[in-house]
Amino acid sequence: MGSKDGTGDISEAQGYAADIDSIREAQARIAPYVHRTPVMSSTSIDAMVGKKLFFKCECFQKAGAFKIRGASNSIFALDDEQVSKGVVTHSSGNHAAAVALAAKLRGIPAHIVIPRNAPASKVENVKCYGGHIIWSDASIESREYVSKRVQEETGAVLIHPINSKYTISGQGTVSLELLEQVPEIDTIIVPISGGGLISGVALAAKAINPSIRILAAEPKGADDSAQSKAAGKIITLPSTNTIADGLRAFLGDLTWPVVRDLVDDVIVVDDTAIVDAMKMCYEILKVAVEPSGAIGLAAALSDEFKQSSAWHESSKIGIIVSGGNVDLGTLWQSMYKH
Amino acid sequence: MGSKDGTGDISEAQGYAADIDSIREAQARIAPYVHRTPVMSSTSIDAMVGKKLFFKCECFQKAGAFKIRGASNSIFALDDEQVSKGVVTHSSGNHAAAVALAAKLRGIPAHIVIPRNAPASKVENVKCYGGHIIWSDASIESREYVSKRVQEETGAVLIHPINSKYTISGQGTVSLELLEQVPEIDTIIVPISGGGLISGVALAAKAINPSIRILAAEPKGADDSAQSKAAGKIITLPSTNTIADGLRAFLGDLTWPVVRDLVDDVIVVDDTAIVDAMKMCYEILKVAVEPSGAIGLAAALSDEFKQSSAWHESSKIGIIVSGGNVDLGTLWQSMYKH
Repeated sequence: MGSKDGTGDISEAQGYAADIDSIREAQARIAPYVHRTPVMSSTSIDAMVGKKLFFKCECFQKAGAFKIRGASNSIFALDDEQVSKGVVTHSSGNHAAAVALAAKLRGIPAHIVIPRNAPASKVENVKCYGGHIIWSDASIESREYVSKRVQEETGAVLIHPINSKYTISGQGTVSLELLEQVPEIDTIIVPISGGGLISGVALAAKAINPSIRILAAEPKGADDSAQSKAAGKIITLPSTNTIADGLRAFLGDLTWPVVRDLVDDVIVVDDTAIVDAMKMCYEILKVAVEPSGAIGLAAALSDEFKQSSAWHESSKIGIIVSGGNVDLGTLWQSMYKH
Repeated sequence: MGSKDGTGDISEAQGYAADIDSIREAQARIAPYVHRTPVMSSTSIDAMVGKKLFFKCECFQKAGAFKIRGASNSIFALDDEQVSKGVVTHSSGNHAAAVALAAKLRGIPAHIVIPRNAPASKVENVKCYGGHIIWSDASIESREYVSKRVQEETGAVLIHPINSKYTISGQGTVSLELLEQVPEIDTIIVPISGGGLISGVALAAKAINPSIRILAAEPKGADDSAQSKAAGKIITLPSTNTIADGLRAFLGDLTWPVVRDLVDDVIVVDDTAIVDAMKMCYEILKVAVEPSGAIGLAAALSDEFKQSSAWHESSKIGIIVSGGNVDLGTLWQSMYKH
C-alpha cells in the first residue's frame, strides 16, 4: 500500500483501486457524456477567507452533480454483452439520477432502487432520465436486499455508487480537469462521504503533483471519516444527522486505504456553517448548491482550518462544489431554521 | 434616424446615441474591469422551449449585474480633471452598486442617492464598494432633487443609469461578447426597462448581423415599452407593479429611437411567469437570478412568443440574464406566493 504519512508519495501505491492511468482512461471514456465544468472565483469571498479560492462547479454538471462521471465511466466500461440486461443501483440521491442518465445514453435499461423516504425532487430526476424505479424501505438492509433481488430477476449489472475502481476513476476526472484549468492550485478541499470522490481526486492530484494537499470536508453529524483517520481503521456510526444528505455514507474497503494514506486532514464543520456557506454561494457566487456542495467553502472559512498547519501552507485552494440538486423549500427551511 | 421597420438596417443610423464603434471602444475601455461572463445552456430547458437557448449569465458579472459595463465605461471615459470631484448617481438597484464599484476602481468618491425604501441587500452592496450613501424619499422627484443638490455641493459628475451614450455603449458590450461566444444566434431576448441595455444590445447585434431579431421582455405591471411601441411615442405610466424591481424605469429620449426602430417585438409576461422562470433557473441551470434576470426565459416560454412570427423564424436564441442580486427571503416569498 502507499505511504501513510500523507505526504503524497504514491509511487508504491500499487494496491489502490485506481490510479492516474485508470483516471486518464476514464477521462477519455466519459468525455462525450459529461460537461467540462467551469471554475469560478470571487474577490469578495477571497477577501473573507484570506486565500485565493477556485470553485470547481460540478453543480453545473449533467444531472446536477459529479456522480455522472463515475456512473458513465462504469457503464461505458462494460461490454455490450455485460450490459445487455441493463444496470441496477440503489440510491436516494445524485447517483440514482446519474445511473439513469448514463444508462439512457448507453441505450440500456436502468433499475433504480429508491427508499420510500427519498426527496421528491431526486425521484423526479430519476424519472426524467427514464430510470425504472423500484421502491424499498429506508434501511440500507432493505435497499441492498431489493437491489440484489432485482439483480437476480433481471440479470442487470450492479453499478456501485462508491466502492468500485470505475466509480473512483470516474470521480477522479474532476481533479484532472481542475488542475488543467488552474495548475497553480496547492490545496484541494473535497466533501467526504463514502470516499469515492475524494479517493479519485487524491489519486489524480497527488500523481500530478505530490505536494498538493488534499483536505476532506465532513459534516459533524456524520464524521465517520475523521473518526476513522483518528482510529486508523474504518469506523461506522450507528446513525447520522446532518443537513448534507449527500454525505451520510461510510468509507468502503477500496476508498479507506486512499483516505488513510493520501488525505492530509479532515475538517469537520457543523450544519450552521454549511447553511451559511450555501447562502454565500447563492448570494455572492450566484450559484445554486446543495448542502454537500457548500461544505468545502464552509471548511475553508472554519476556525479548524485556520488553526491548522495546512492553513499556513495554502494559498491557492480548489473547492469541489460537488452538486446543486436542492429543493427550494428545503433550502429556505435550512436557511431560516438557523 | 434609422429605419423604422425593425429589419435592422442601421446604415443610416447616424442619429442614435451610440453605434458599433462606440460599443467597441467601450469593450476595450472596460475590459480590465469587467468579467467576460459565461454562456450556459440546458438540454432540459431546450426541450421545454423547443429551441436552443443560450443564457448570457450577467448574474456572474462584477457587482452581480450588467450595470458595471455602462458604469465603468462612463467613469473611465472621463478625464482626470472631470472626475476629480467624484461621481454621483441615484438608484435603488444594481446601477448604484455598479457606480460605487467603478468609482472605487478609478479611485474617486461615489455619492449614491438611495431612496429610503430600497432593499437592504442593495444598500449593503453599495456600502461594500465604499459608496457614500445619501438618503432621499422614494419618489423620483426627491431622488433627482437630492442628486442635483449633491452635484452642486460636491462638483461630482452625474452618471446616468440609462440615458447616456457611454451607458448605452457599455451595456452594448454584452451582445458583442455573446456573438463572439455563439455566432450562430439568430434572436436575442433582452429585459427592457429604461432601454439602456436593449439599445446597446440591438445597436451592436444589428451592426454585426442585420438579420438578428431583437425581442424585448417586459413585465405586465410595467409595460410602458409595449405601449410606447404601439403608440409610436414614449408612454409613461402613473405607477408600476411588478416583482421585477429592476424593470420599473421608463424609456428616455436617447433609448426610445433605438427601441422604436430596432426592437422587433415586445413580449409582455406576468409576474407568475417570471417567478416560474426564476425557479427553473435555480433548479435546472443552478444559477441564482433576480426576477429581472429571469424574464427573458419567461418570455421564451410564453404563449405570446409561440404565437408570433418571430417564433417560427427563431431557432438559436440568446437570453440576456441581466443580474442575480436577489434577497433569499424575497425569493422565497415570491416563489410561494404564486
